[in-house]
Amino acid sequence: MKNYDILMDLALIMVGAKIMALLARKIKAPMVVGEIIAGLLLGPCVFGILKSSSFIGQLAEIGVILIMFSAGLETNLTELKKSGLKAFVIACVGVLFPFVCGALLYMCIYGFSSFGSEGFFKALFIGSIMTATSVGITVEVLKEMGVLKGTVGQTILSAAIIDDVIGIIVLTFVLSFKDPKTKLSVVSLKVLMFLAFSFILGYLFYRVFKLIDERYPHTRRIPIMAMGLCFALAYVAEAYFGIADITGAYIAGIILCNVRDAAYIDRKVNVNGYMFFAPVFFVSIGLKTSFDSMTWSLLGFSLGFVAVAMLSKLVGCGLASKCLGFKGSECMKIGAGMMTRGEVALIITSKGMALGIIDSSYFTSVILLIIVSSIATPLLLKFLYSRYPDDAKSVEIAADNE
Amino acid sequence: MKNYDILMDLALIMVGAKIMALLARKIKAPMVVGEIIAGLLLGPCVFGILKSSSFIGQLAEIGVILIMFSAGLETNLTELKKSGLKAFVIACVGVLFPFVCGALLYMCIYGFSSFGSEGFFKALFIGSIMTATSVGITVEVLKEMGVLKGTVGQTILSAAIIDDVIGIIVLTFVLSFKDPKTKLSVVSLKVLMFLAFSFILGYLFYRVFKLIDERYPHTRRIPIMAMGLCFALAYVAEAYFGIADITGAYIAGIILCNVRDAAYIDRKVNVNGYMFFAPVFFVSIGLKTSFDSMTWSLLGFSLGFVAVAMLSKLVGCGLASKCLGFKGSECMKIGAGMMTRGEVALIITSKGMALGIIDSSYFTSVILLIIVSSIATPLLLKFLYSRYPDDAKSVEIAADNE
Repeated sequence: MKNYDILMDLALIMVGAKIMALLARKIKAPMVVGEIIAGLLLGPCVFGILKSSSFIGQLAEIGVILIMFSAGLETNLTELKKSGLKAFVIACVGVLFPFVCGALLYMCIYGFSSFGSEGFFKALFIGSIMTATSVGITVEVLKEMGVLKGTVGQTILSAAIIDDVIGIIVLTFVLSFKDPKTKLSVVSLKVLMFLAFSFILGYLFYRVFKLIDERYPHTRRIPIMAMGLCFALAYVAEAYFGIADITGAYIAGIILCNVRDAAYIDRKVNVNGYMFFAPVFFVSIGLKTSFDSMTWSLLGFSLGFVAVAMLSKLVGCGLASKCLGFKGSECMKIGAGMMTRGEVALIITSKGMALGIIDSSYFTSVILLIIVSSIATPLLLKFLYSRYPDDAKSVEIAADNE
Repeated sequence: MKNYDILMDLALIMVGAKIMALLARKIKAPMVVGEIIAGLLLGPCVFGILKSSSFIGQLAEIGVILIMFSAGLETNLTELKKSGLKAFVIACVGVLFPFVCGALLYMCIYGFSSFGSEGFFKALFIGSIMTATSVGITVEVLKEMGVLKGTVGQTILSAAIIDDVIGIIVLTFVLSFKDPKTKLSVVSLKVLMFLAFSFILGYLFYRVFKLIDERYPHTRRIPIMAMGLCFALAYVAEAYFGIADITGAYIAGIILCNVRDAAYIDRKVNVNGYMFFAPVFFVSIGLKTSFDSMTWSLLGFSLGFVAVAMLSKLVGCGLASKCLGFKGSECMKIGAGMMTRGEVALIITSKGMALGIIDSSYFTSVILLIIVSSIATPLLLKFLYSRYPDDAKSVEIAADNE
């Protein structure tokens, strides 16, 4: 492949995403839905003009990292501390509920198996695929509507980040029955070590950035160094602690959210995001989708799988929020915001395939879940927010228009 | 390779480039020199922490495309029309002089060969490697000093773009002796067709953008669509007309340089450039450098090769400008600005290797030329501009500081 081959792909992605996003806004749908549909149209699903390449995959990874970094930068630490414990509870219920429902779904279709049998593991595994929320899309939609900084927005964000970590622990728990190399104790220790590591490092870097920021405010070095920190922490999280890179990027954002130039960094990161990387991320979701291997029986299972995965998150997180004292409309928003699934579900599925727990046909179900939840969540969120606006809506002023 | 593996590379590139750029500025050297040296330090030449990957190569390609697009956007069309004919003459002399000198260098070292013999082709080929200026670095330096829009800056820019095209024609001329598939008539026709194509398309897109710009000024869709046009034209230039992608990107910039929001587009493209892609481009030059296969005799030839390549451009372009009525100091600036060589020289070399005209040892000489000229040109330009400031210096105000 020549270096210039990617240029036409990028041109198609950017122009296609923008046109579809503007059309989506015309019909009052969130713009990210338009971008994902642009990917479906360009990809093997419809016209087959583009296909996902490793280059696009890597750009998309940078895209979601920048989205999470920006979410971290816009975090209101006081709000986060207030919502932290509640978010933790919502995340726990939001992991366990889909986990149990997913396992039950499998058993209902393929028959109940006794504890410890092959079928039992398969059921547990199907459950663990359903656990991890993919927060990138939700964050972008909340930002688009200017409600990310509100209580509900911050709660969804924290809960989704925490549920990633709990999801990993649940997965490890399931795998530890099957794979002697995966140890629950080791994984838990790694998570704790990562928290300690980011706390210490975070404090150090916060001081360093504060110092640079005071001496050279509003200079290019600040956003550039900040992006360097974001990439480094994302890498370290994934490579050394087994935690999703987007979690590392989000923590990098939180580290810097109280620096005086946080808004300046965020603005520069955002230009990179919306001009280039974010469209690639959303379009690539659509590009990865293909239904070549779809059969009727698989379609039946897939539909059940998608419905259970989405409803169990919605109900689980919604009920948990209700118990924590949120209002009814807020519970629905939180439940809806947690429904999206993304790359983590794919990663867990590939892990299961590699270990021979499930076979490759489940991949199609997972992709269907990702695409349906990616489109349904923004639509539902937008509907809920227009019907029940936030009480203390913190309207963010966008730097410029679409 | 996992998607997250690239994150640490990017973090190192961005932070390393910024630190070295700031150090370079401390000692009054151009910042791009610092970034290239960061690549040398990180790469196999010194510490060997990073190596060039296809992903980095593709990001670098986007980087140089954005630099050229931005240069196009900042083009002063009146100035360009004024300098156009002069630039054409300078480009012609600036191609022919190094071509002849390169061929003579080869013959001086390895003996004169009769017309049509193997050695004669080799000599001509060494000459054609020396022809094409790589304008990306020069443009960035001129921008850094705020003199890109001046007469000298615009002349260098146009001449470098034109010399690319002439360089391709010379290469085709040489190859047409050796490779029956390469036909001079076809290549010339392609160049003419590309010019016609960009003229027609350019006019159409200019009208479209003017329309969008009037209806939705300062909206995100404008820079995004503009970048889409840039990538598309860069691709079309290379893939269908055999002209360098950066030439296509530059023409895309020229098409849009008279749109009312040109400065707005340029600002957004620049944020993407300096935050991410441009550092990757400059660092990648250093990363590609390795002197593992260096021997003493090769070193001798390489030094001669580098000296002849640089001096012949300097003298050729300088003399041509002198004849065209430029002042002495301006001639030196133009000559110096045309000295850099880059990816085109590498591409020509690989073409020659593929056809069996020259062997792989020349690759080291070309890389040495690229690295020496990439560092010497900015230093020389900065020296010349501080010693002889432009008469009608059009100082550009940078949006923010480094």
